[in-house]
Amino acid sequence: VLVDAIATALGREPLPASDAAQWPLSGRHALVTSGPTHEPIDPVRYIGNRSSGRQGHAIAAALAHLGARVTLVSGPVSLPDPRGVQVVKVATAREMLAACQSALPADVAVCAAAVADWGIANPAPAKIKKGPSGDEAPPVLSLVPNPDILATLAAPGPRRPALVVGFAAETDALLPHARAKHQRKGCDWILANDVAGGGVFGADKNTVHLLTSSGTEDWPTMDKEAVASRLAERIAQTLADLSARKAAP
Amino acid sequence: VLVDAIATALGREPLPASDAAQWPLSGRHALVTSGPTHEPIDPVRYIGNRSSGRQGHAIAAALAHLGARVTLVSGPVSLPDPRGVQVVKVATAREMLAACQSALPADVAVCAAAVADWGIANPAPAKIKKGPSGDEAPPVLSLVPNPDILATLAAPGPRRPALVVGFAAETDALLPHARAKHQRKGCDWILANDVAGGGVFGADKNTVHLLTSSGTEDWPTMDKEAVASRLAERIAQTLADLSARKAAP
Repeated sequence: VLVDAIATALGREPLPASDAAQWPLSGRHALVTSGPTHEPIDPVRYIGNRSSGRQGHAIAAALAHLGARVTLVSGPVSLPDPRGVQVVKVATAREMLAACQSALPADVAVCAAAVADWGIANPAPAKIKKGPSGDEAPPVLSLVPNPDILATLAAPGPRRPALVVGFAAETDALLPHARAKHQRKGCDWILANDVAGGGVFGADKNTVHLLTSSGTEDWPTMDKEAVASRLAERIAQTLADLSARKAAP
Repeated sequence: VLVDAIATALGREPLPASDAAQWPLSGRHALVTSGPTHEPIDPVRYIGNRSSGRQGHAIAAALAHLGARVTLVSGPVSLPDPRGVQVVKVATAREMLAACQSALPADVAVCAAAVADWGIANPAPAKIKKGPSGDEAPPVLSLVPNPDILATLAAPGPRRPALVVGFAAETDALLPHARAKHQRKGCDWILANDVAGGGVFGADKNTVHLLTSSGTEDWPTMDKEAVASRLAERIAQTLADLSARKAAP
């Protein structure tokens, strides 16, 4: 009963004493990124994107539900923190990368955040004024490439998580773009989703394709929570397989 | 009792039958803008700003509380719609202006939204790609001036509201910038608030200065709801004075 109470307090379903297999990620550390990034133009304005964070937050919750210790690095969202998850809040891509690197080592990293590809070269320290007549030339926004968080986490090295999962949100040519991203980033899996029309942002449901080295799985349209559960179960199975392979003589 | 029930349903305090002065804005139409605008770069990315919409939404609620019919034109916010207020949701500055013009005529307009001064000249129809190597030159964002909603509503003409109120959010030289804005825009009042440090965005409290043709009033630091109530009462008094002046022989 005490275990149940603790489990409930942590936001997990109580663990049936007879079935530890319900917590297959026990002892694992999962790193999840979620939400948009905000790249400041000046103290008031920023470049953002339409990610609601719902899918990433649901993945963090699903991994915790399977027993993982979860660090969720989140850009600015209007979602409550998932229960039983350690949340680190950031704004920019650079801050998100730094928070991810601080959270390592991890057994699995799921990069669900919609990270800005570019930041502003020199954010203005004070609000940019339109000028007295309003007819002045608009300011020129000089963009600079942001660090690539997925590629950085997926790069070979002693701190690389055993499993690195990226997302590809595309408005056109979804699978070709996602396959190219899979090869380019060095990650193990890509979850590709079609954001054409904008309906997926903040929506309940998602239609995704899982790209692995073995091929492409088309998942049916599901609630974002169901996508998260299915992904978490696949992650648990894969980490168990990797451990079994390591342990084999 | 029926009146009370209707008033409660509309989200207002019940009207004491003996004191119609509690609804001093009865029969008036108030137009309020609130929140940020989002100017699309492509279907996924946008330029936004850090307005939470809390002050503007509170003003809409306060005007409704005094009996006004209120149209609230709101950019993307994560706030509930205020009760008893008609809410029109928009994203860009151009959409906000069109919604405001559709809502006219109005007795008072309060422009509390943080409207982007610039939009993107040619938003991309599909998500802009970083390119295969990630080393390509970043895209150039060509900005174009947005319509000036406050100046448009404040311009002389048969549909100009009797009272037009603007906001000035500044990070530096608050009062000089606000005074220049007051003169430039042709509005009757400016509520100036200091956003240096960013603490005001989404915060509970606000420190504002009311600039009118008679001078500058420094209001004490108050909850945003208290700022809204005080402004709504000033508006009610001023509209009553204007009506009395018109009615005078």
